[in-house]
Amino acid sequence: MTLVEDLHAALGAKGVLTGRDAAPYGEDWTGKYKTQPLAVARPASTEEVSQVMRIAARHGAAVVPLSGRTGLVGGGAAEGALVLSLERMNRVREIRPAARLAVVEAGVILSALHAATEPHGLTFPMTFGAKDSAMLGGLMSTNAGGSNVLRYGNTRALVLGIEVVLPDGRVLDAMSELHKDNSGYDLKDLFIGAEGTLGVITAAVVKLVELPAHRGTAFVGLDRLDAALDLLNRLQSVTGGAVEAFEYMPEGYMALHRKLFPEAQPPLADLHPVQILVEVGAATKDVPEKMTEVLAAMLEDGSLSDAAIAQNAAQRAAFWKVRESAAELAFHCRPFVDSDISVPVDKVAAFLEAYEARFPEIDPGAEALVVSHLGDGNIHHTIWPKRQDPEVLDALRALVEEIVGELRGSFSAEHGIGHSKQATMARRKDPVAVSVMRAIKSALDPDDRMNPGKVLPPL
Amino acid sequence: MTLVEDLHAALGAKGVLTGRDAAPYGEDWTGKYKTQPLAVARPASTEEVSQVMRIAARHGAAVVPLSGRTGLVGGGAAEGALVLSLERMNRVREIRPAARLAVVEAGVILSALHAATEPHGLTFPMTFGAKDSAMLGGLMSTNAGGSNVLRYGNTRALVLGIEVVLPDGRVLDAMSELHKDNSGYDLKDLFIGAEGTLGVITAAVVKLVELPAHRGTAFVGLDRLDAALDLLNRLQSVTGGAVEAFEYMPEGYMALHRKLFPEAQPPLADLHPVQILVEVGAATKDVPEKMTEVLAAMLEDGSLSDAAIAQNAAQRAAFWKVRESAAELAFHCRPFVDSDISVPVDKVAAFLEAYEARFPEIDPGAEALVVSHLGDGNIHHTIWPKRQDPEVLDALRALVEEIVGELRGSFSAEHGIGHSKQATMARRKDPVAVSVMRAIKSALDPDDRMNPGKVLPPL
Ligand SMILES: Cc1cc2nc3c(=O)[nH]c(=O)nc-3n(C[C@H](O)[C@H](O)[C@H](O)COP(=O)(O)OP(=O)(O)OC[C@H]3O[C@@H](n4cnc5c(N)ncnc54)[C@H](O)[C@@H]3O)c2cc1C
Ligand SMILES: Cc1cc2nc3c(=O)[nH]c(=O)nc-3n(C[C@H](O)[C@H](O)[C@H](O)COP(=O)(O)OP(=O)(O)OC[C@H]3O[C@@H](n4cnc5c(N)ncnc54)[C@H](O)[C@@H]3O)c2cc1C
Repeated sequence: MTLVEDLHAALGAKGVLTGRDAAPYGEDWTGKYKTQPLAVARPASTEEVSQVMRIAARHGAAVVPLSGRTGLVGGGAAEGALVLSLERMNRVREIRPAARLAVVEAGVILSALHAATEPHGLTFPMTFGAKDSAMLGGLMSTNAGGSNVLRYGNTRALVLGIEVVLPDGRVLDAMSELHKDNSGYDLKDLFIGAEGTLGVITAAVVKLVELPAHRGTAFVGLDRLDAALDLLNRLQSVTGGAVEAFEYMPEGYMALHRKLFPEAQPPLADLHPVQILVEVGAATKDVPEKMTEVLAAMLEDGSLSDAAIAQNAAQRAAFWKVRESAAELAFHCRPFVDSDISVPVDKVAAFLEAYEARFPEIDPGAEALVVSHLGDGNIHHTIWPKRQDPEVLDALRALVEEIVGELRGSFSAEHGIGHSKQATMARRKDPVAVSVMRAIKSALDPDDRMNPGKVLPPL
Repeated sequence: MTLVEDLHAALGAKGVLTGRDAAPYGEDWTGKYKTQPLAVARPASTEEVSQVMRIAARHGAAVVPLSGRTGLVGGGAAEGALVLSLERMNRVREIRPAARLAVVEAGVILSALHAATEPHGLTFPMTFGAKDSAMLGGLMSTNAGGSNVLRYGNTRALVLGIEVVLPDGRVLDAMSELHKDNSGYDLKDLFIGAEGTLGVITAAVVKLVELPAHRGTAFVGLDRLDAALDLLNRLQSVTGGAVEAFEYMPEGYMALHRKLFPEAQPPLADLHPVQILVEVGAATKDVPEKMTEVLAAMLEDGSLSDAAIAQNAAQRAAFWKVRESAAELAFHCRPFVDSDISVPVDKVAAFLEAYEARFPEIDPGAEALVVSHLGDGNIHHTIWPKRQDPEVLDALRALVEEIVGELRGSFSAEHGIGHSKQATMARRKDPVAVSVMRAIKSALDPDDRMNPGKVLPPL
């Protein structure tokens, strides 16, 4: 039997797509790549995932696991490969309010998990622009970050246990609910962030936190980035660390947003060199009140130029919408060089200044879009070159990498490596680290069938 | 040249110990094992560690890395092996108050790091009974926990980056200072907790936190464990999660403490079924005040039987001394069965009840000592059998494991596997997980020279 016939026998008609039906699974959100998968398997249970992996092993087929298909680094490119879509594994198996945890399958959409936990006064504290499509399996495989990392950590910090189907179909049960467990090597954190190159994550035990009963959300305009860091430190100090998000959008971001979304009501009347979207959350209402007091005092003494505090849920949503349009802004025009970098928190300004000083040597007409999870030192930096030949794009990419290296930052803060950051990985990552990663990859996937050609640069 | 001659040439006389000088490095704190190392290498820099590893590789010698030698699971047993002691790599290389981090070498003693950071109003928020001997390298290699995990997480959560010398002497530079970095597999968390079986950790970037300006420390007596969990929840809720430690000692623990330390002033006059040592910390003094109010209200309504609040540093130290004598209490009498287990937080009472109900079938005269990081569901459980034949010890060990399994707990919460928990690992760990760990071990240490015979059970 062929691979597809075997899959049909195991999963039934609903479980397998081919040809034109499979094509969308080979395309990505950014439109950067278009690949044609051999077929798409849509297993509905861990047992079925295991069967798919055994069948693929028998046929020597490459397997690309896919969840919500919102990844931004080409990690889902699947030319000629079998796509294993987790979309039918979408059950929230359990919510245990007293233990503050949920047991979820990999195909659960992030906003669906929010909706399922909220009636219990709890939430999975991670959010970003793709929340209505991205799935827990993708979040885990990319160790996603987003706007609440400052307070709650990245995906790795929010997952207690996982279930993984290995390349040969065996099921690894690491579904721990424990906060302390030192029984051998930390396999959970190895599969988290491995971008599908070591196995298929099928389920997880995730932490929930109390939904803040009282929130304060403000859009603030300032002249300088260092004043923004002052604001962050003052807020952390008076609220005992209750800042949930601290997002930076410079003038150019706001101007482009107005241009692309002219119907949207701008949170502040004027454009400022620095805009910050800040949110605090707590069980008690004194915390948002303290935020208001700090903002008032800083407006008074001139360290802030303007500030708007969301008066209701609709206004809060409107503020967030500006921030969450970032990906649409970044990818509206091409070609582009997109970077997802991090530097020490106090080096964000240094990065931006170094870039401004040095890009004109390469392409003085290049335009850059900046948006940043400022509290984590994470900058999403997109460049549209004026001179569009490939060498210019490469040179601009190299410039960003070089400055990041000088500041001891990372060339991939939260989106991962996938396909599009492999060359950078080859150039910039400690070669000993890459060789250790290769050794692990060969040990767990000796035939190189799991999402081949991703993460690790070609030899 | 012999191994020892090569080491002499590389490290000089101060760097190598043999014979009687090497013997203490083969013994452990508990007195459970006594081994004779072939020699002890005492490198003073990463470069020297790398040389030692190259020399060991050339001679095919097994290497046992050792830091403070306080490990409790025989991870340092070193019969015929080369011990690599990190004790001379004891520099705090850097303290960066603004970035809230320190760069430390593996041989820095935990309490020395506390002393170095405190003048900056900062601390490395981990503490336990062995803090004056245990070193950062050991903390990392065992992913140590202790009394503050409830608030700040275990070692893994407190380390941003590490430097590792691999079995062949290559140096892996993963000294990241970043809070977000998704550039490839998570190697840091693989080496953390690997108990020296994959490489030698030589240095780390660790997080620091603000030293609480205001602290409240109380010793509380109660009748029942569920009232203790109520107390924890009420305190977390009114203080916004400022509980730093919540340690449980039952009546038997207190009675044994009085017997072994008759000169110590007891924190409470009477013995209670449940004693809790609780500590809160914050930037503002309203937090300890809120603790006092909750304790007063619960004394008033009868949910607490007694409570003493530390009035000064000396009293606080005296309260902690009772708790930190746990290891001395546990190991004062032998033979013993010591367990370091964790269960979901709300299952601690269920574990204890199940044990009480079932041990008499095996050895009705057995006595048990319990002490627990209650806020994490972590129980240190020591049994002194009355019938001392090996089968009885095995049966008691099996009973504890069985109940832990029923409650979906872990048979090793914080001390690790080392040598003494290998049999349990073989019996109780998911076999697929063990086989993945073996594959990783073979990939990174193909000659099985790094702390051989530890963590992974013999095939
Ligand atoms: C508008 C927008 C905003 C975004 N904002 C952020 C942000 O703020 N922070 C952030 O971190 N990311 C952000 N992203 C990137 C992306 O959404 C996240 O990385 C997300 O976690 C991907 O989830 P997914 O389900 O879409 O994964 P997919 O795109 O389906 O897959 C991502 C990668 O993981 C692998 N994979 C997927 N599922 C599994 C599985 N079950 N087992 C093993 N491997 C698997 C895939 O092979 C692929 O390599 C954004 C994306 C968009 C489009
Ligand atoms: C009184 C007392 C109380 C304790 N309380 C606690 C507690 O509350 N919580 C807790 O978690 N533990 C506790 N422990 C256990 C122990 O102190 C910790 O595990 C500690 O982290 C060990 O550190 P160490 O420097 O002594 O390591 P060592 O004993 O020297 O080594 C421990 C293990 O790590 C390996 N290792 C050491 N250094 C390195 C290195 N640089 N690179 C690679 N591998 C290395 C060794 O081979 C060994 O397997 C306690 C111990 C005592 C004696």
